[in-house]
Amino acid sequence: MISTNEYFEGNVKSLGYVTASGKSTLGVMNPGDYEFGTSQHETMRVIEGEMTVKLPESNDWNTFKAGDTFEVDANKSFLVKVSVQTSYLCQYK
Amino acid sequence: MISTNEYFEGNVKSLGYVTASGKSTLGVMNPGDYEFGTSQHETMRVIEGEMTVKLPESNDWNTFKAGDTFEVDANKSFLVKVSVQTSYLCQYK
Repeated sequence: MISTNEYFEGNVKSLGYVTASGKSTLGVMNPGDYEFGTSQHETMRVIEGEMTVKLPESNDWNTFKAGDTFEVDANKSFLVKVSVQTSYLCQYK
Repeated sequence: MISTNEYFEGNVKSLGYVTASGKSTLGVMNPGDYEFGTSQHETMRVIEGEMTVKLPESNDWNTFKAGDTFEVDANKSFLVKVSVQTSYLCQYK
């Protein structure tokens, strides 16, 4: 099954699927500011575009470009700013 | 705008968006055999999983794994076999 998900009034959309190493989602964000919460550890990879991120317990914003990855622990929230349509892979591992 | 598309009775789903270099779609395929037609030149990249592909005018099947890319000219058709859920990026360039 491929799940379809929408968040932030359709400004973030994702497709969910399962691989040998666990659940993944592929997503696209419209330009905007977002706060995401995690229920599991997440490894995020930017596919196209870029996102500027304030990780949990960080005071700084860091910009991640295509190919860059960052990780977020379970039960945390993080902030994301996007200025162009940006795609990502989120692996729940 | 982020477009949502479904093909092959929901066994292939994709999200469409636009980057500085043109249109892109991110997609997921369920296990199965598919024939796709192109209306523009496409550059396909496997994100997770793998796809076995018979390109236009090729007699052979080639397997593309995560990170691999292949290109298809406009107005061609190509065959894809997938044995696990497989995600891809398709850039229309």
